[in-house]
Amino acid sequence: MGENGHLTMGGLVFPRIDQADFTGPFEVLAQLPDATFHVIGKTTAPVEDSRGLVLTPKVAMADAPQLDLLLVPGGPGVNELMEDAEVLAFIRKQAGGAKLVFSVCTGALVCGAAGLLKGRRATTHWASFHMLEFFGAVPVNARVVTDGNLVCAAGVMSGIDGALAVAAKLRGEFVAQGIQLEMQYAPEPPFRSGTPETAPAEVLKSQRDLLAALLERRLQIVKRAAARL
Amino acid sequence: MGENGHLTMGGLVFPRIDQADFTGPFEVLAQLPDATFHVIGKTTAPVEDSRGLVLTPKVAMADAPQLDLLLVPGGPGVNELMEDAEVLAFIRKQAGGAKLVFSVCTGALVCGAAGLLKGRRATTHWASFHMLEFFGAVPVNARVVTDGNLVCAAGVMSGIDGALAVAAKLRGEFVAQGIQLEMQYAPEPPFRSGTPETAPAEVLKSQRDLLAALLERRLQIVKRAAARL
Repeated sequence: MGENGHLTMGGLVFPRIDQADFTGPFEVLAQLPDATFHVIGKTTAPVEDSRGLVLTPKVAMADAPQLDLLLVPGGPGVNELMEDAEVLAFIRKQAGGAKLVFSVCTGALVCGAAGLLKGRRATTHWASFHMLEFFGAVPVNARVVTDGNLVCAAGVMSGIDGALAVAAKLRGEFVAQGIQLEMQYAPEPPFRSGTPETAPAEVLKSQRDLLAALLERRLQIVKRAAARL
Repeated sequence: MGENGHLTMGGLVFPRIDQADFTGPFEVLAQLPDATFHVIGKTTAPVEDSRGLVLTPKVAMADAPQLDLLLVPGGPGVNELMEDAEVLAFIRKQAGGAKLVFSVCTGALVCGAAGLLKGRRATTHWASFHMLEFFGAVPVNARVVTDGNLVCAAGVMSGIDGALAVAAKLRGEFVAQGIQLEMQYAPEPPFRSGTPETAPAEVLKSQRDLLAALLERRLQIVKRAAARL
């Protein structure tokens, strides 16, 4: 790693991504000096995030250079990605040469399906946390978890905290602090509702109910994907 | 306002937007129940954010319905927007019928150029804060500032805090807390560098130096735009 030399970074976008898993870290990492950040898709066709935001990759997976950092975001669409052999092969190949693989939210499960989590400390979105063990991961209930060249951020907005940590690793604390200032990232959440441990019980129940069907389908996919490893 | 009835919301995207000013609030507001969020551009042609992310509007300004909430994000491209008569007319017209106008970061300056800030409490990104007064605003150094139907968030990531406040206004605290949980928004910034008041002096100086030329051009534009009001 170190602070010298041009950095080539890239992140995947895909149908039904949760766009904030990508756009949060992009905001941080695309500010790094002497660095390039590629927006990568299976093809360069536009994709829609789970709530309808259109994102357009500039580089197809097959044309991507070896990356120093690969960002793997999550979202409802990871259900399909975990069984997409082409995507998993891309992640595996990039991970072999990358200095860092950085998963955000349920992007960790895609890394798991690619075989990257075996014996590694990892985290993911709270609602899918129980799925990490199927991939042989050592689940850690923390906001950002680092194990060697793997950095996992928990759900969605934790990608900002993870990306600032990654920025500091890659370019030093001074640069990361400058980016934090530029983004005016001095959060003042209006509620204490950001984790299952702090959210009101009724709020947690309501979110679990909303996610139940998606999570049930996901668990079956995780089991199948894990069986293939 | 109140918690009943379908909500029609929309946000502007434009060349050299800071994508996080848009994508952060989108992540929150697009989760509101019984609501539609339109991604609006001058046309439906794709635009590039200041760091190269391609965003594609689905609705052209001329075709947009009257919105209940209009999101006005910022970024380097506000320099052009503040003198774009078509955009300013759109904002002015929408603001006349909207329940809420929500500016993020330097989106406040565009609202100012549209004449919305006169005598109103407002905030913006720390580096452009001194420009608010030219539009007759009452500058308030706070993360989220509400004045009647105008809500202003400060720089970039403050849009998340502002959007959660807006979500609570529109659909109640229970819904907003559920969204915060879904996003796992329990921030743990790795540094205390998110405001000019807390950042190390050398970090602040470095960011001011980086922004100096952009801010000098912006100040001239603000003065011209203010003179037109």
